[in-house]
Order: sequence, then C-alpha cells, then structure tokens
Amino acid sequence: MNHKMVFSTVGKVLLSEAAMLCLPLGVALYRSEPTTPIVVALAVALALGWALNRVFRPRDHTIYAKDGFVIVALSWLLLSAVGALPFVISGEIPRYVDAFFETVSGFTTTGASIVPNVEVMSRSLLFWRSFTHWVGGMGILVFAMAIVPGMSDRSIHIMRAEMPGPVVGKLVPRAKDTARILYRIYIAMTVLEIILLLAGGMPLFDSVVHSFGTAGTGGFGIKSDSIASYSPYLQWIITVFMLLFGVNFNLYFLLLIRRFRSVAKSTELWAYLALFAVSVMLISTNILHMYDSFAEALRHAAFQVSSIMTTTGFSTFDFDSWPLFSKAILLGLMFIGACAGSTGGGIKVSRVVLLLKSAKRELMRLVHPRSVTRAHFEGKTVDISTLHSVSTYLIVYVACFSLIVLFLCLEPEFNFLSNFSAAAACFNNIGPGLSIVGPARNYALYSDGSKLLLSFAMLLGRLEIFPLLITLTPATWTKR
Amino acid sequence: MNHKMVFSTVGKVLLSEAAMLCLPLGVALYRSEPTTPIVVALAVALALGWALNRVFRPRDHTIYAKDGFVIVALSWLLLSAVGALPFVISGEIPRYVDAFFETVSGFTTTGASIVPNVEVMSRSLLFWRSFTHWVGGMGILVFAMAIVPGMSDRSIHIMRAEMPGPVVGKLVPRAKDTARILYRIYIAMTVLEIILLLAGGMPLFDSVVHSFGTAGTGGFGIKSDSIASYSPYLQWIITVFMLLFGVNFNLYFLLLIRRFRSVAKSTELWAYLALFAVSVMLISTNILHMYDSFAEALRHAAFQVSSIMTTTGFSTFDFDSWPLFSKAILLGLMFIGACAGSTGGGIKVSRVVLLLKSAKRELMRLVHPRSVTRAHFEGKTVDISTLHSVSTYLIVYVACFSLIVLFLCLEPEFNFLSNFSAAAACFNNIGPGLSIVGPARNYALYSDGSKLLLSFAMLLGRLEIFPLLITLTPATWTKR
Repeated sequence: MNHKMVFSTVGKVLLSEAAMLCLPLGVALYRSEPTTPIVVALAVALALGWALNRVFRPRDHTIYAKDGFVIVALSWLLLSAVGALPFVISGEIPRYVDAFFETVSGFTTTGASIVPNVEVMSRSLLFWRSFTHWVGGMGILVFAMAIVPGMSDRSIHIMRAEMPGPVVGKLVPRAKDTARILYRIYIAMTVLEIILLLAGGMPLFDSVVHSFGTAGTGGFGIKSDSIASYSPYLQWIITVFMLLFGVNFNLYFLLLIRRFRSVAKSTELWAYLALFAVSVMLISTNILHMYDSFAEALRHAAFQVSSIMTTTGFSTFDFDSWPLFSKAILLGLMFIGACAGSTGGGIKVSRVVLLLKSAKRELMRLVHPRSVTRAHFEGKTVDISTLHSVSTYLIVYVACFSLIVLFLCLEPEFNFLSNFSAAAACFNNIGPGLSIVGPARNYALYSDGSKLLLSFAMLLGRLEIFPLLITLTPATWTKR
Repeated sequence: MNHKMVFSTVGKVLLSEAAMLCLPLGVALYRSEPTTPIVVALAVALALGWALNRVFRPRDHTIYAKDGFVIVALSWLLLSAVGALPFVISGEIPRYVDAFFETVSGFTTTGASIVPNVEVMSRSLLFWRSFTHWVGGMGILVFAMAIVPGMSDRSIHIMRAEMPGPVVGKLVPRAKDTARILYRIYIAMTVLEIILLLAGGMPLFDSVVHSFGTAGTGGFGIKSDSIASYSPYLQWIITVFMLLFGVNFNLYFLLLIRRFRSVAKSTELWAYLALFAVSVMLISTNILHMYDSFAEALRHAAFQVSSIMTTTGFSTFDFDSWPLFSKAILLGLMFIGACAGSTGGGIKVSRVVLLLKSAKRELMRLVHPRSVTRAHFEGKTVDISTLHSVSTYLIVYVACFSLIVLFLCLEPEFNFLSNFSAAAACFNNIGPGLSIVGPARNYALYSDGSKLLLSFAMLLGRLEIFPLLITLTPATWTKR
C-alpha cells in the first residue's frame, strides 16, 4: 500500500470539510447564532488536514486499487468524527456517541436520527445536518476532487470505491472532469427543486434544507412530522425529485449530450420505474380504507414508495400504522434501493436485475444443459465475471445484514421487527424503520453499543461493504 | 422431455406409496382401529400407479436432466395428495387443505402441524404421519428405487434432483445400489435409536415414532409438548441422534469402508460441529437465568440448537419465551440448516461454507487484483462454476423466501415475526417458528391460501427450489 499517498489524500479531504463548514458558519453569522461550535470544528479539520499533508509527502503518486478503498473508508470515518463536533460543543446533542451517529447518518444519507425534538435545534446546525446529506449523496471524495486543487487525477480507484453500483465508469477520460460534470448536474437539479418548492410557498430555509435532503436521498427534515405538514403540491414536488435523484446520473449526462436513445433503452431505468409503479398501485389499494379519497391514498403511497425505494426516508404519514402487507412491501423496497450511480442506497436496482438474470440463466442451463444462455444488460452482453461479482456482493451483503440483526437482538427490550427494520433502514441508508424506529419515533432508545453498530452499518451500506472490510483486513496493511 | 418415462416413473413411485401404507395398516389391525381410511388411500395409490404404468409405456428409457426434476416434483406432489386421504376419510383432519398441509409437512420432514390436539389422534394415523418423515428424509425416489423392481437404473438425474446439497455423487457406480446402501445405513441408525430410547424407558410406540421423526429430521411428535415430558436421558439421546442424522450420509459410507482419514478431514463436518458448539454456548449463557442449574440450561440449549439446525423441530421447552438474542440465533440456524446429503433441510452447511469462501476470494481479489485465489473444500479445489452455481442458489433462495414472506403478510392479523419465522420454518423444513407459530402453538390460524403457500414453500425447500421451478417453466414441457 502507498501509505503516504493514502494519508495525504485523507488530509486533503479533511481540508474540503473545512470548506464545507463555511456554509453553516455563514448561516450562523446571518442568524446571529453562536459561531464557536462551527469555528472549532473548522479549525480541527484545517489543522488535522494540514498536519496529514505535512507529515505524509508522497513521492510516488500512484493510487492502487486497495489504496482507493482505504482512502474512502478512512475519509468517511474521519469526516464524520470531525463533523460531529459542532453538535457536541453547542450542547444541542450533548453526547458524542449520539452526535457521531447523527453525523454518520448525515454523510451516508441515511437520515436516521436520535434527536427527540428537531424543532428546537438552531438553524445553523440544522443546515449543517442537511448539508452533510447533500455532500455525502454524490460522495465526499468526488466533492473533494471537484474542489480541492492538487487532488490526484489518477484517482479512478477512489471513484470506483466510492460510487455505488456494480460497474462504475468515467463519463469523460479525466476523473476530475467527471467529478465536476456530476456536481454541475447535481447543483442544477438541486437549485431547480429549491425554486419549485419556493414557488409552492415553502420558506427559503425549509426549501434549501429539504432540497439537500432530497438530492442526497438523505431524509433529515426540520420538523418532527417530516413532510406531513406541507401542502400536497409540495409533497408531490418532493416525490418527483426523490425519484429523479434515485436515477443513475450517467443518464442525465447522456441527456446532456443528446443521446436520448441510450437513455430510453436503459434496462435499469425501466425496472426502477416499473417497481415504483407496481408498488404504488399495491400499497394505495391496500391503504385505501384509511383515507378519504383515492387521490389522498395515492399521494401518501407514491410519496412513501419514492422515499423508501430511493432510500431517502422522508414521510408524510406514520406508515408504521399501515397494514402489514404495505409495510412488507416497503421493507422489501428498502433492500432493493435506488439505481446504481445515483445518490440512493440499498442493493441497487441494477444489481437486483443482474441477480435475477443470473438466476434465469441457471434455470435455463438446468433445463437445456448444452445450450449457452447469455445475460444482456443495458444493451450489452454481461460477462460471467460481472455476474459472479454481483452474486458475491449478495453473499457479503446477506452475511453482514444477518450479523447486524443478530447483534441488535442483544438489546433486551426490543421486538424483532424493530431490530430487523433498524438494521435494514441503516444498512440501506434509509432512515426510519418500523415499530420502535418507525417514522414517528427515533433511534434514541438504542444503547451506545447498538448506536455504534448502526453507525458502522450505515457506513458499510453507503460504501458498499468492501472498502471497510478491506481496511479491516490485516493483509491490506502489509508492504507490497 | 421424455413424457412417457416421466409419468411411468411417477406411477412406480405411487406403487411404492401403496407399499408404505401397509405399515400403518398393520398398526391399525393390531390396535383394532378403523382400517377403511388407510385401505382407501392404498387402493387409490395402487390404481393410480397401475394406470400411469399402463397408459405410459416408454420405449426410450433415457431420463434427461430436466426429466429428473419433473419426476421428482410430480412424485412429491402426488404422493402428498394421496397420502392426505387417510386423515380426511377418518375425519381426524376433516378439511382436505389441512390434511394436505400436514402430509406435505410430513414428507418434506418439516413437522409444521395444524392439529390442535395431537393426543386424540389414532395410533395408526400418528404412525403414518411420522412414517412420512422417515421416508421423506432419505427421499421418496431413493425409497422407490430401493424397493420397486424395474425402476430405471439410469436414474442418476433423479437422485441429483432429490438429494440435497450443492454436489451429489453416487457412492457406487449403480444408482440403485447407492440407494440400497443409503437405506441400510439409515435403517441401522434408526433401529439403534429405537433401542436406546427403549432402554431409557420410553414405550415402544413412542420410541418408533420419535425415531422416525429424528431420522427424517421431521419433528412430528405424539404429545402437545413435544419431547418436554420425557426424561433428561431420553432428551439427550434424541439430541445426539438429531445431530447424527444431520451429517452427510456419505461420511457414514466412508466410515463403513474404513476411510477414517477422509471423514476426519471433512470441512463441512467440522463447520457443522463448530456451529453447534458456538450456538449452544451462546444460548445457554443467554438463558441461564431462566433455569435452576447450568446443566438444565445446557440441556435445553443443546436440544434446541440440535433440533433447529438439523431442521427437525422437536422441542423440550417453549423457546418462544427465551430472550430475543437466543431466538435470533435459532432463526439464523434455521436458514443455515444441516449438512448436504443428510436428511436435514435449510441452505446446508456446505453451501454456507462455499458462499463464505466465494466472498473471501472476492475480497482477496480486490486487495491483490493480480493474484488468483483458489477456494478449497473437502480437500479439493472448487471450480468457479460450482462457486457460481452455489451463489445462484442463494439468489433464488432469497427471492423465493422474500416472496413467501410478502404473501404471508396479506394475513391481516399477524405480526411480522410470525410470518417471517413461519416462512423460515416451512421453507427450511423445520416446523415450529416463533410467536404465533411458536413451539407451543401451531399453523391452524393461517388461512387456506397461506396454508397452500406454506405447503408449496415446504416442497420448494425440501427439493431445493429448482425441480418445482423447472416443472412450472413452460419451456420444460415443449418437445425437444
């Protein structure tokens, strides 16, 4: 491993966090709120980032495959550790474990919260909380790459390690340019959402913060009832934008360069939209008796399906009170998640499609042993090694998920559904689960041990497991 | 597909069911219980079996790969359909859906029951119920092969389709001889258990019936509290024998031909024993406060772990009242199941080991992209296609399981744990689940639709999914 390069890159990412913290600092100054908590965190990020860059001066600028994984894992951990400071120093989240949980939940775009009453928090920290969603959604290393000068351009391994999905390609030859294009699309869409929310009468602060939460598919809100108290128009806008941010960003790039036919042929996009439509139909029928009109049932169903399958986690209704069948559908959608290359989490629609294609191929092989069935995806033949590595991802995914549920069951008082859905909601970066961690409640009841476990689960899920596992593998740290 | 060969073989299997029914008929005659219910079923099996053999007279005796799957699927369905008749005719299980559920549960060695009070049933039908476990454990086609003259000897495809596990080999060149050797070992072990239970003071009928339930890893008992009212000695005997019947029978064959070293080197055996030991340790510590002594906690823990991981389903205690952590471990063991080539169900220890090896291989490939890591199992290198087909099994397994849970959640009144554990307990052929389907309760509360779904789940699980899926695939039925 190229230790020096790893640590100096992590240092640069910390410097980019200092830049991020300037925004909530601005909010604090504008609203005359205390600035010390943010200034201290900013200073720590600067000092630590500067120190790492002083101590580790790499002569070899190569970043190897495993270096990419380690950089990503360490950056996310350190950024969360520093990003938690303002909450603790301000006393708004007094205990560090809680603040760490909340910050990891922010950067990983989970949106699971331990704050019992979010409405008493200061504006600047609410802003920071939601801004972590926005940065974490597209990726903190992609962010750093786009803004920090001197970040290595030979860093496709970093993008591979951070970008979700089975296959990650660069849009353009240089990683840095790819990062900038992605962020331009991202900013444009976020601004469009802010404008449409403002047009519907939502206050500016609310519009910005909710657009951050939508864009990153995070889900932190600023009201205890999430989006429930806003008008149907605003709820529909957010429904549509959650769905849009759950689409692979490569498709938006293809739209920009006018390759419409490629977009229309995307297997993943159609599977994603079909899954949305079928789920909304099933749930609205199932919950119809609870509402006055079909339109109302449809609105809540569409919002919740969009929110859960894109792994955002906003809610317009306490869906924990819906019939078990609807809850089971939502629970299933939590695992499937959004499209690869989007800001959403979960297993990803493309992986699920590839897994089902693998299964169909095996079935055909058993029926016609001598025939060779090829799997096709996005207009190309999928090679066996991609299918195999997607299957392997499922193995690791199932194993990690089972262990997380098992350890949560050490909590003496909780029911199985709470633990199962808490694990699902954190591991897939959704936020609210069911029962004790349902949308009307929060994660405060869990013990510190479980909160750390769930923080780990959120990071595992956001980074798609391997970066953390590789960082924890001793073989990674040996000299090559 | 070779239609004629398929149906005539299914006919022969039905004839073998007529032979099976002679045993409970003998019990009925000896105990002066009504014989009509059994005689009618016997007559139906004979007539149907004879008719299928008259109508379909194959000239080509070849059995192709997909034929094997279809034969197995149809045989298990028909045998259950006919085997349910005595319960309905006698009026002991008046509704056919219930009787079908109970018989599928018997043959698939699940042991899930809808009988509210098993103690009022007649001896002959209790015997039949448990005898289906014994036959289903080793496989009804293996049974037919061993006893029906004229069963094709070129039927390795049938054995492959029925025998559980990722790789099925013949012990000796001829399938029929393999079937006979397996049954000889099976009978010897069953008789040994009967003798040891008799020695502990268990009545003859109880000993025979419980040995059937243990041998097939089924779990039907003759008391409402399962094994709880028997002495600790008897409970320990059953604990050990459940564990023995969960071992790959190939290992017993290797013992017979004195290849002790091969047995001692079995990866699967050691993984299985380690899993047992660790689970017993964790659970007995977790439940210690509920019992008077460590010995008592250990006995209940060992019994329950052995019962669940071999997918038998006997119980000595209402483990639904144990702490959630212990229940979560048991729930996890339900999925892992017993060894391949045993009478137990679940995913199988060997598959789990191979899956973890796949995952480790992928991790190593990511850390050292240019190195090639080979997976080893049972002293041999595992080729990539075996790893791939085991991974594919996991995909199909997870997909089927999720759908079963989803459809069970259409039941309006039940909690998630009930449905989740009912699906797990039926799909993995265990029997009792948790909550509403816990060991102290039964499946009677489910609707007819759910009972049929769970019957399908039991067959899917016992036959390892593909035979039923292939039979339901239209491409299978087209002329080649």
